[in-house]
Amino acid sequence: MNQHDQRLGRHIPDPVRAQNRKAIVDCLRRRGAAARIELSEQIGISPATVTIITSELLEDGVIREEPAAPDRNEAARGRPRTRLELNPDAGYAVGIKISMHQAAVSLTDLSGDILGAETIPVRANRDAPEWIADICVQQVQKIIADSAIDPALVLGVGIGIPGYVEYPSGLVRWAPVFSERDVPFKEIVEQRSGFRTFIDNDANMTALAEKWFGVGRTFPTVLVVTVEHGVGMGLVVNEKLYRGAHGFGAEFGHTKIVVGGALCRCGQRGCIEAYASDYAIAREANILGPSVDTDDPIALQNRMRQLIRQADDGDEAVISIFERAGTMLGTGIANLVDILDPPVVVLSGARAQSARAFFSSLRDAMEANSLLGADQTVDLRIDSGGDEVWARGAAALVLEETLI
Amino acid sequence: MNQHDQRLGRHIPDPVRAQNRKAIVDCLRRRGAAARIELSEQIGISPATVTIITSELLEDGVIREEPAAPDRNEAARGRPRTRLELNPDAGYAVGIKISMHQAAVSLTDLSGDILGAETIPVRANRDAPEWIADICVQQVQKIIADSAIDPALVLGVGIGIPGYVEYPSGLVRWAPVFSERDVPFKEIVEQRSGFRTFIDNDANMTALAEKWFGVGRTFPTVLVVTVEHGVGMGLVVNEKLYRGAHGFGAEFGHTKIVVGGALCRCGQRGCIEAYASDYAIAREANILGPSVDTDDPIALQNRMRQLIRQADDGDEAVISIFERAGTMLGTGIANLVDILDPPVVVLSGARAQSARAFFSSLRDAMEANSLLGADQTVDLRIDSGGDEVWARGAAALVLEETLI
Repeated sequence: MNQHDQRLGRHIPDPVRAQNRKAIVDCLRRRGAAARIELSEQIGISPATVTIITSELLEDGVIREEPAAPDRNEAARGRPRTRLELNPDAGYAVGIKISMHQAAVSLTDLSGDILGAETIPVRANRDAPEWIADICVQQVQKIIADSAIDPALVLGVGIGIPGYVEYPSGLVRWAPVFSERDVPFKEIVEQRSGFRTFIDNDANMTALAEKWFGVGRTFPTVLVVTVEHGVGMGLVVNEKLYRGAHGFGAEFGHTKIVVGGALCRCGQRGCIEAYASDYAIAREANILGPSVDTDDPIALQNRMRQLIRQADDGDEAVISIFERAGTMLGTGIANLVDILDPPVVVLSGARAQSARAFFSSLRDAMEANSLLGADQTVDLRIDSGGDEVWARGAAALVLEETLI
Repeated sequence: MNQHDQRLGRHIPDPVRAQNRKAIVDCLRRRGAAARIELSEQIGISPATVTIITSELLEDGVIREEPAAPDRNEAARGRPRTRLELNPDAGYAVGIKISMHQAAVSLTDLSGDILGAETIPVRANRDAPEWIADICVQQVQKIIADSAIDPALVLGVGIGIPGYVEYPSGLVRWAPVFSERDVPFKEIVEQRSGFRTFIDNDANMTALAEKWFGVGRTFPTVLVVTVEHGVGMGLVVNEKLYRGAHGFGAEFGHTKIVVGGALCRCGQRGCIEAYASDYAIAREANILGPSVDTDDPIALQNRMRQLIRQADDGDEAVISIFERAGTMLGTGIANLVDILDPPVVVLSGARAQSARAFFSSLRDAMEANSLLGADQTVDLRIDSGGDEVWARGAAALVLEETLI
């Protein structure tokens, strides 16, 4: 147990106490700030228990008293209640997101605010995992030094990787960013950085970002669909990330939408990814020319930017490519809505910025494939926040793993 | 509050007490029987709290002391511990399952054992819901009278219906068994029977049956796929039936497996149901002749029996029909496994009895569409228990709604 663990009061708690701690942290996450009596009412535990548990959490530095704000209405009603909130300075989180063409490294406080971020170009599926880890850890050290925070306050490193990541072992079973299977990337980064490291599927990390800092503060269940080089999903059910029985849960990109359909880079046919991901769109566009190597992540990025512009400028052939991709993804999301009936769907990842034709076809397909029509409208939100979502996701992953 | 409600100690409990009650009932459901000290260890609440809560549950009649059984080993270790178990005689549940061609009415005790059952032929989509309710309620009264139980001990009626059932209102938004939309079937049955009535999607009810009396006693998460006239699914996540945000959750039959594919009776194209359900199989077989009316539920049942026999006897054309249905359903289940990564999948409903070619194609397609191959093998179980599953599902629904 290191010094920082002691400050956070890390020890084996009894289950009811742990449950109460979790309930209070969850309630403050959702509400932002709340008085003790509100916590008692919301959670249904006695005011005395709330007082004991919040004292512990205050002592541990996990929560703090809300900085006083002049509020005339409150003052008029008498002595203002002290409100509690999660303490953004309880520690810091390092985030690493590995994509096909870059690694994004970030440092956030525990409210998800970014203190520093760097993007390093990599050719992930050609560089060795150890090499990628080395250059990421160098950047981590640089960002921590630049931001002048105490490295002892870094609670951990959260890593997001597209593909099948075994949880909690951190073994990357299969991912397009690595040329090998079964890469123990958690271990590799942990050894090099010296920080506790947590690794998860990148879409899961996005879902955690929504849970802690986004729509998950309003809705207990959130479905996130990510589109970029691949297509992924993350699912929070009743405030909890859904991981499945073997830690492979919430995979979406390789579900089949056309049995025997287009060839996917996974080797199977008819996967959603084979229609809606960047490489699938570029593959179709190669017929129009000029042809690009869809395996070259940087060429692919540039091509996507160009194609989006062409579609938005009215090029009918390119529009039809985005329409097809949108229709396939919209149908796939309609399937997820059938299966999961979520209160909200968030579309995230690089392709939350795409051609107008993509989004209109996507919405049309979602509506056309809903059995109940207008009764089953889904609140679809486009999160075009870019790389920030990964930094917030890393912070959320570290919060989940270390704070509660 | 009626007399029976009083016997069961129904009143507004404080949340922690309710949580402890639920934890103890859940633990006894999973383990079958357990001593108080085992409950304390398993759930992580103090022995004193276990003693208080189990006293209440004993007084309420929800649990009982396990009938003494001579056990030499136990006796040899000293004074035997009294073990507690759920009390199967705490009350009774009436079940009604509406299919296209029949209504199955049952009476069970709370361990899911069937005291009486009747099947009434109906032509569900041609008969008015009120008429179906009338003949079901007549049967319910007859079964209760025949079994000589005290009607005051009937805790409720559980009804399973294929289609979109709004929960907990019991409004049937859309179902193939009714020719109208928005049928308030819960109200209709409640008025006629005088019993508290609970209504749910039939596949949800099967999932509850698995939770209370089947594989759900071993696995906290269970995926049930039902195939008969339609294709459905039910999902238990962490001991809790997953209903989705609008109560429409866990729909499977109308997810798309071939965009723009075969026409489904819902009016859309490419639904799994349009390939794997009874009517889809019969529709293909009509090309071989003799043609049957796939809208006629009884003709369809007979035709299915005949086709299964023909396939198992080696008729290549009929085998190819079952192979296609199995491939489509297996691919659809592989999609669910990708999305949900369940520890176990149960195939239930009438078509858990089908041609051998159906099951071998289904298993092949599940394996071929799994990205991780052997690492992701799914424990697929075929529950060919027939109509009993509906009776147990009704008991489980009533248990969920009244006991905890």
